[in-house]
Amino acid sequence: MRIVLDAMGSDNCPVPDVAGALLAAEEFGEPIILVGDEARIRQELARQPNQNLKNIEVVHAPDAVLMDDKPGVVGKAKPQSSMHIGMNLVRDGLADAFVTAGNTGAAMAIATLYSLHRIPKVKRPALSAIVRLEGRKVILLDIGANADSKPEWLAQFAIMGKVYAQKALGLENPRVALLSNGEEDTKGSQLYQEASELLHALPLNFTGNIEPKEVLLGGADVVISDGFTGNVFIKTAEASMSLIFNAIRAQVESSWRYKFGALFLRPAFRSIYQNLDPVEIGGAPLLGVNGVVIIGHGRSDPRAIKNAIRQARAAVSGRIIDAIREGIQDSGTEAS
Amino acid sequence: MRIVLDAMGSDNCPVPDVAGALLAAEEFGEPIILVGDEARIRQELARQPNQNLKNIEVVHAPDAVLMDDKPGVVGKAKPQSSMHIGMNLVRDGLADAFVTAGNTGAAMAIATLYSLHRIPKVKRPALSAIVRLEGRKVILLDIGANADSKPEWLAQFAIMGKVYAQKALGLENPRVALLSNGEEDTKGSQLYQEASELLHALPLNFTGNIEPKEVLLGGADVVISDGFTGNVFIKTAEASMSLIFNAIRAQVESSWRYKFGALFLRPAFRSIYQNLDPVEIGGAPLLGVNGVVIIGHGRSDPRAIKNAIRQARAAVSGRIIDAIREGIQDSGTEAS
Repeated sequence: MRIVLDAMGSDNCPVPDVAGALLAAEEFGEPIILVGDEARIRQELARQPNQNLKNIEVVHAPDAVLMDDKPGVVGKAKPQSSMHIGMNLVRDGLADAFVTAGNTGAAMAIATLYSLHRIPKVKRPALSAIVRLEGRKVILLDIGANADSKPEWLAQFAIMGKVYAQKALGLENPRVALLSNGEEDTKGSQLYQEASELLHALPLNFTGNIEPKEVLLGGADVVISDGFTGNVFIKTAEASMSLIFNAIRAQVESSWRYKFGALFLRPAFRSIYQNLDPVEIGGAPLLGVNGVVIIGHGRSDPRAIKNAIRQARAAVSGRIIDAIREGIQDSGTEAS
Repeated sequence: MRIVLDAMGSDNCPVPDVAGALLAAEEFGEPIILVGDEARIRQELARQPNQNLKNIEVVHAPDAVLMDDKPGVVGKAKPQSSMHIGMNLVRDGLADAFVTAGNTGAAMAIATLYSLHRIPKVKRPALSAIVRLEGRKVILLDIGANADSKPEWLAQFAIMGKVYAQKALGLENPRVALLSNGEEDTKGSQLYQEASELLHALPLNFTGNIEPKEVLLGGADVVISDGFTGNVFIKTAEASMSLIFNAIRAQVESSWRYKFGALFLRPAFRSIYQNLDPVEIGGAPLLGVNGVVIIGHGRSDPRAIKNAIRQARAAVSGRIIDAIREGIQDSGTEAS
């Protein structure tokens, strides 16, 4: 299996990207193709303590997508970017998956409009995340690929989410729910009410609307939303939890008495912190694109890069693209 | 000042409602008009330890809105509900404000379509909440009155939110921001991008888009959203924080060592819990309706009912209706 890594992706690129590629090449024993500014990549490779470069390949890309590049124009404006050239390797059958810690919107636009394109009959790709909540894993989509959605797109997100849960969580018949402002079918905006009707008719275990609280309590395995609401949801959950942990930390630091008490509680805090992590595990797969694309955090460290590569490998082994193609075909959603 | 309280509002009505009315009549020394099933109200009044009924009046309403009544039909189906009759007292100048812990959607529909109607030139009322975050107060609207919105409505929500922040938070020039999935003006759905353009042109201190994290860190005094997203935001923040507190409680209970440590930390936890409360303070005002309407939690206890009445009194004293009328007129938003 050959995985392409965008060496110019992360906020501190190419430092964590190159180091992560080496970790992955070592652990998985198969080729990692670094795409980006070859001189900078070679310089960074030369700095690594691990000089076993057997499974490292470098493909030069003269340009790079920046975090503030506009998704709508970057695909056309920078046809020689590492993202563009890297995805084309997958499109042309020279590699099996593409991983980047770069600009999500740009990756979505380049994949959809210029390089890999969509899986046949998929209307829009969705950005998905696996979040961990007290030991359970929940798949959320769309968390930000599309700022505006249509009911038929949400219906397809549900099919793709189901397939992804089967592959990534090993669930045969995952519970799929629709994020909403109330549990009754009459709740939600027009978009959500129409999506709910479509979802009831699909071949999946659709359990209806779900409120944020129930999502956090593990009331569904796959939670469907439009990209705007899903993005607000995941960012709000993440920020709320951080706020509490930071407030606890600040309080504990404020007095010797609290510091003393906290000594006893340290393992408890650590366990809570590790089990309640609304931040995505590894990277976010761009589901619906005709090739495996995993998007990691901009602030990824080498370990996070390696984990995103691991996730890409699992998606390739699980034949996720074929499974989505079949799922969409069997669902009849292409006609709606 | 005469405040009308819906005696049939809360989940356990009329028990906490009647007791809250007595607390308020005692504390504020002015009339509270209880509207609802007169026999049940009198029965409940007779049970109270405090038998000073000097400032308590009762108006009979033969019907009541239930929590699962459909907002779209209940106004027409139950013209004799306590909500309907209570709001009419305000509309007809027989009282100054209406308070209910009942069905939010029904209160919105009855107020807008059947009883108080909108303040002239207001396109849609919005449900607002004041939340407390580490000692700061933030006003959010719309948190659920309208499942679908238009850009012009969001622009008016901003004007109403500004006026409400001036009155309720005492801020002369509150910072108004638009909830979004990114800080750049290009972020957000079409609705939000169009709203952002309108907001830049309004006579207010518009600071642009704001992400959930910055809302929680106090980056704005007034946060504007559509009712669907605002509802998901506030419910997600509330549920995320509860989840952490519950996880801490469960961990602490799980071992003697943790229980011992927690003894030292108890005041720290209490302080955090009290300062980080994304739950609304008292009730949520329905802004834009031509009369003061405050909607409390269904699970209100007598103290919460009293606080919602206090909030209604402050809105009446502050002449919030006049201020919103003037704000909307001066903004020119009625023409957009």
